[in-house]
Amino acid sequence: MANELPVFADVLAAAARIAPHAHVTPVLRSRSLDALAGAELHFKCENFQRAGAFKFRGASNAVWSLADADAARGVVTHSSGNHGAALALAARSRGIPAHVVVPEGAVKSKLAAIEAFGARLHRCAPTLAAREAMAAQVQRDTGANLVHPFTDPRVIAGQGTAALELLRTTGALDAVFTPVGGGGLIGGTAIAVAGVAPATRVYGAEPEGAGEAFESLRRGERVTDLVPDTICDGLRGTIGAINFALMQAHGIKILLVSDDQVRAAMRLLWERLKILVEPSSATVLAAVLRNRDRFAGQRLGLVLSGGNVDLDDRPA
Amino acid sequence: MANELPVFADVLAAAARIAPHAHVTPVLRSRSLDALAGAELHFKCENFQRAGAFKFRGASNAVWSLADADAARGVVTHSSGNHGAALALAARSRGIPAHVVVPEGAVKSKLAAIEAFGARLHRCAPTLAAREAMAAQVQRDTGANLVHPFTDPRVIAGQGTAALELLRTTGALDAVFTPVGGGGLIGGTAIAVAGVAPATRVYGAEPEGAGEAFESLRRGERVTDLVPDTICDGLRGTIGAINFALMQAHGIKILLVSDDQVRAAMRLLWERLKILVEPSSATVLAAVLRNRDRFAGQRLGLVLSGGNVDLDDRPA
Repeated sequence: MANELPVFADVLAAAARIAPHAHVTPVLRSRSLDALAGAELHFKCENFQRAGAFKFRGASNAVWSLADADAARGVVTHSSGNHGAALALAARSRGIPAHVVVPEGAVKSKLAAIEAFGARLHRCAPTLAAREAMAAQVQRDTGANLVHPFTDPRVIAGQGTAALELLRTTGALDAVFTPVGGGGLIGGTAIAVAGVAPATRVYGAEPEGAGEAFESLRRGERVTDLVPDTICDGLRGTIGAINFALMQAHGIKILLVSDDQVRAAMRLLWERLKILVEPSSATVLAAVLRNRDRFAGQRLGLVLSGGNVDLDDRPA
Repeated sequence: MANELPVFADVLAAAARIAPHAHVTPVLRSRSLDALAGAELHFKCENFQRAGAFKFRGASNAVWSLADADAARGVVTHSSGNHGAALALAARSRGIPAHVVVPEGAVKSKLAAIEAFGARLHRCAPTLAAREAMAAQVQRDTGANLVHPFTDPRVIAGQGTAALELLRTTGALDAVFTPVGGGGLIGGTAIAVAGVAPATRVYGAEPEGAGEAFESLRRGERVTDLVPDTICDGLRGTIGAINFALMQAHGIKILLVSDDQVRAAMRLLWERLKILVEPSSATVLAAVLRNRDRFAGQRLGLVLSGGNVDLDDRPA
């Protein structure tokens, strides 16, 4: 599958394909957070997804899209985070090998999770070039299928299934918010929302310290040379070309949030919803609270992307 | 209502009475916790209950059991913890006054929660005698109805509705576990389980540093003079007489756990279920893990009692 833009039918197909494997995650509410936001907030809890993040949706869709002969050679990706773990788990559920290229210096607990799901780790220098080279090497050596964390159309279509479920649970919403890193989740969400509820707007929440999507949309061309500086470890990646094209095509707007706003929002989610989310997830609540007047009185859907927070490194 | 033993019909009536007010909380699963326990674990998440704990069930049942004329005079209790907040919220939902007697030195954030739900605080010295005297004074002054945190039969019946919902969700279970403090939750649970699934055993999990229920059952008489020393702030109370009678009548067994085991279990619940629970809640998982061989291969229900953990005081 080349990197053509995925469409709504791909999201629907993904939903059917991953149904036997992925959780239908709950949508939580909180009266006190509604009061704080002056709006009606519906939280789609992907922190409860298998392997702890929405990434399992896209990874599963990619793994189960493969023909048997291709699948037998396994899958490979480069990711030291949630996508690596998600792909490892998806591969194990199909009984095929998974190779995950990880940079030197990656967080030990994350690597342990990837290995616990049965993947083989391949270490490389901590640069994008080294990661891509190593992944290409593994492909040549094993014939494994590359599943990119966010530019793979199968991955994007899979990520869109979270918004499908959200809208099925809530009915009409004025807007849906997701965090923006590489753009897999926001891209899939934009496709799903346009298919189900075209009047519903889609917003991306992005840390000020990793504002590539915001800057790319402002300039009208993809920016890839910002140096990320944010506590949102899941959102430090560069926006993908196909992802940028989807954001432009769907008229996505980006709302920036500071790390302090993310910390405050994460604490609110812990305290009021009684759930554990990682910093990236809290960007969506931070964005709504920062733009309180803009969304006052509206029905809003917020995708909480994951819960893989390092408990030894508490929020302030 | 005098302190006669509540029966199954009272639990069923409570379920109908609180249905418009209380949440039906989700039951969560985790493959990795199942593997760790060697058993099938079903977690009833009362940390998602309104006001953050199962206590809202009993408080609501008591408040909505009152005749209109009685209700108009309000309710009073002594509790600086979850019951105080739960009763305040239940009273507000009925539009009646709530008085909560709190000892000097109680945690500020908990008092703020009680006040935020609209209750009036009455401060007294930090002894049981002073609390009871102050509550009696408020009763005389206002005509408010006393709703004891765990000896009130309406409260016990209300707490039993969590187990009703749990069994409705899971179907047959080999055993159900709840934390034990004053004995309201375990008492209501015993009644509910006996009514729905008489073959299902009920276990109480109790901290070694607050083992009054264990000691009372061992001696065959109620022990009330142990000095509690445990991180489980919700389980430091003395076991009630009616609660002890219920535990004896239903053949409840108590499993002791150390504070270290509670800390480890709490961390597992945070990490694997991605939910926030307070130390008291973690006793049930700690008890199952401590007695791994005894429950191997069984289907178990664990009531996670609440999520009101102080985020400024993190677990080790």
